[in-house]
Amino acid sequence: MTCEPTRLPTAADVDAAAARLAGIAVRTPLLFSHVLSERMGARVFVKPETLQRTGSFKFRGAYNRMVQIALSARPAGVVACSSGNHAQGVAMAARLLGMPAVIVMPHDAPELKRARTRALGAEVVGYDRASEDRDAIAAAIAQARGAILVPPYDDPQVIAGQGTVGLEIMEDLAAQGLQPDLVATNASGGGLAAGIALAVKSRAPQARVVLCEPAGFDDHAHSFRTGMRERNAAPTGSFCDALLAPMPGRITFEVNRTLVGEAASVSDAEVAHAVAYAFRELKLVVEPGGAVALACLLEGRLGVSGGTVAIVLSGGNVDEATFIRCLRA
Amino acid sequence: MTCEPTRLPTAADVDAAAARLAGIAVRTPLLFSHVLSERMGARVFVKPETLQRTGSFKFRGAYNRMVQIALSARPAGVVACSSGNHAQGVAMAARLLGMPAVIVMPHDAPELKRARTRALGAEVVGYDRASEDRDAIAAAIAQARGAILVPPYDDPQVIAGQGTVGLEIMEDLAAQGLQPDLVATNASGGGLAAGIALAVKSRAPQARVVLCEPAGFDDHAHSFRTGMRERNAAPTGSFCDALLAPMPGRITFEVNRTLVGEAASVSDAEVAHAVAYAFRELKLVVEPGGAVALACLLEGRLGVSGGTVAIVLSGGNVDEATFIRCLRA
Repeated sequence: MTCEPTRLPTAADVDAAAARLAGIAVRTPLLFSHVLSERMGARVFVKPETLQRTGSFKFRGAYNRMVQIALSARPAGVVACSSGNHAQGVAMAARLLGMPAVIVMPHDAPELKRARTRALGAEVVGYDRASEDRDAIAAAIAQARGAILVPPYDDPQVIAGQGTVGLEIMEDLAAQGLQPDLVATNASGGGLAAGIALAVKSRAPQARVVLCEPAGFDDHAHSFRTGMRERNAAPTGSFCDALLAPMPGRITFEVNRTLVGEAASVSDAEVAHAVAYAFRELKLVVEPGGAVALACLLEGRLGVSGGTVAIVLSGGNVDEATFIRCLRA
Repeated sequence: MTCEPTRLPTAADVDAAAARLAGIAVRTPLLFSHVLSERMGARVFVKPETLQRTGSFKFRGAYNRMVQIALSARPAGVVACSSGNHAQGVAMAARLLGMPAVIVMPHDAPELKRARTRALGAEVVGYDRASEDRDAIAAAIAQARGAILVPPYDDPQVIAGQGTVGLEIMEDLAAQGLQPDLVATNASGGGLAAGIALAVKSRAPQARVVLCEPAGFDDHAHSFRTGMRERNAAPTGSFCDALLAPMPGRITFEVNRTLVGEAASVSDAEVAHAVAYAFRELKLVVEPGGAVALACLLEGRLGVSGGTVAIVLSGGNVDEATFIRCLRA
């Protein structure tokens, strides 16, 4: 296991990540939505990371971190903790880089995400979310194998990789002569939000970046209020299986409390409605955790009043049963 | 009702249509698919017209035709026959152009498509597919109101509008230094196929354009074999409600027998599987009729052997019940 001194990531790190990901990650399109624009009275774009490799933005951060591992260290592989999307991102990056990968995944992770992680060639080690410490399990595996831990969010290079989502939003808007007034993104540990904030605020300091969470898992909202990293009351139980981090990351919170500073939240029912809306109106498959920012927009929680708005749809790895439940809600 | 002398559309008509549609229609992205490329051993792109205004490519042809109606003729409006996607395309174009629209729609059209056509401000007139002649009904309405008929496919300007799908495919591939070896598209009356063929073959004469149909509604396949426009045995009953034209159009067939000349077909079960595949792997919502070309690809009916392939996903207007049936098939 290697340790690096932690430092805060910068907008330049995001630019460097974009160069590493060029031709490897999908440059997802920025889609102007006529229906959302009409409904909200604003110029609304969506950024469907659902179309990213492995079905979520997570591939960006994982690959950006892992491609920087020295060739000599690659045979020992990587270890990651994830309920599913980071797992697949790490597994895909490991496959592309020819590295072994072990994923420590809770027993209650969606079967779809578990199966896909295995299909990408990773080894899956299960644990019980309530009684076991995933970080301790992962650290033990890393120690035993000499493998490198790839954190899901609290790592400068992981954050920089996720930030390329924001960089692409800025570039695609700029190509149309636009700058965003508001960028809204889903958040769990806050890595995507931090990366996006770095890319957005360095180019449009006046733009608002809003971090969107499921109700009951709104640790960022609490943390922004107190100025300290606050923990969610419940460790599990959200409909949004992708957004279960117990509290903001250390590094991500340093970035987010400065550059973001505001959060919005929605109920499970509102998230289910947003998943169904994406099906009906956007023709996009979005998982519950990927639809939280969209739900915040639809429910009027983002304080949109005209201007240019970008909403990140962060993932689309939803199983049939959950999706059908959303359509019928 | 106005009559124009019919002539065959050209690649230049498609270019002119692109200029009329710029900033009005969505320029849908051309998405490289890693999963389809790995599976097929080729460089596979998808063109999701599901993301077009009104959820299908039909808006392109309707607007391109209707924007050329003289201002003096606009107050009398337009009339169109459609089971749903052309209806919405015409209704949206009419709304944007400030024209009244009457849509003659079969009683068995999907409720979703009927409701959306009404929501766009069009008047819907029902008819019985088995016992009534929709063309006669539409002609009578046009006569009575002095309205202009907007044909779903057999019109040079409608074909030219649909052809912008092919033009965008060619432009986006060219930007990556590529030309297609094969472009596959769904077909009913053949307007989309004809337009795409004009755009593709004028730039890449060696490229194959393959027209994809549901089994039992493969009138183009029969017609290509005999060299004459052949009629489907059944007038209705396909799972693909968007692809129920009884036979190839007169103008479209003139174009398609020269520039296309080959067809592929798939069963309803294969189409349902493709809809589910698009959900799971592409994270896109595609209606049955929009997934026929994808189904032909997945079932190995396109004779793909490497190279660069583009698959058109022509529409995403599927109701919940039908979509759920596909996911469970």
